[in-house]
Amino acid sequence: MKHIITALVENRPGVLARIVGLISGRGYNIDTLNVGPMPDGTVSRMTITVPGDDRILEQVTKQLNKLVDVIKVTDLTRERHIDRELVLIKVSAPPKSRSEIIELVNLFRAKIIAVQSKSLIIEVTGTEEKVESFLELVKPHGIQEISRSGALAMARE
Amino acid sequence: MKHIITALVENRPGVLARIVGLISGRGYNIDTLNVGPMPDGTVSRMTITVPGDDRILEQVTKQLNKLVDVIKVTDLTRERHIDRELVLIKVSAPPKSRSEIIELVNLFRAKIIAVQSKSLIIEVTGTEEKVESFLELVKPHGIQEISRSGALAMARE
Repeated sequence: MKHIITALVENRPGVLARIVGLISGRGYNIDTLNVGPMPDGTVSRMTITVPGDDRILEQVTKQLNKLVDVIKVTDLTRERHIDRELVLIKVSAPPKSRSEIIELVNLFRAKIIAVQSKSLIIEVTGTEEKVESFLELVKPHGIQEISRSGALAMARE
Repeated sequence: MKHIITALVENRPGVLARIVGLISGRGYNIDTLNVGPMPDGTVSRMTITVPGDDRILEQVTKQLNKLVDVIKVTDLTRERHIDRELVLIKVSAPPKSRSEIIELVNLFRAKIIAVQSKSLIIEVTGTEEKVESFLELVKPHGIQEISRSGALAMARE
């Protein structure tokens, strides 16, 4: 099962290395991770997705919570939450196949953010499921490059 | 100056820890980082933003390129590229201030992805500049939570 964990941490050099080291030191592969600073710059927030069973992930979150620069770790997997991912895709698009790609982009409420002679760069945002469906449909056109943010998650009331 | 670095790496436990360790071991603070797998699952792609001068960042990218699980590292800072970030924002929104927030959301082509009794969760995508402007304008309403993906970047033709 894939777990979604969020963590608030001090924004200092070395903190990310310790967190990533703790998780991968226990043999877990981090599937996706993202980290960015909060507005005041002193605190950063991370979202991490890790495949693994509940019992072991519980140990990992407990140990993360003990790290000195970690403010709070939450496993959102079994709580009500929303999650979204941003993906940039460079897809082959000679003029003759552009209209078909544009149709897909509109259906998924994605955006074309760069038009180049032989390719388009597309931005798509949504749940992992939506993003995967889009990638599947666009694949036959030839995907040249992909960049995924990994899931961002937030608890609902 | 903020550098945007992209890296293609083998998707194995420990690789992310080595990369993050190498950068922070040299005293650089990683501002934002994101990593996600490519469709076949064997390779992951990362985007990292690090403040620092050109000369030192050049050394860091060279050393990253030498790591055994690193396929390719590119500093896009001085190349033509596009960059985008995804941000989720939970903002206080009692019924009387909702219309003002909705107006901002429409102006920035953002999206409301959850409506709760006293707050809204908003999804905004764009360049760092656009995202910062949106945060600035929404701030007076009371930001309860933010989650940022950090920049995703891709070279243009």
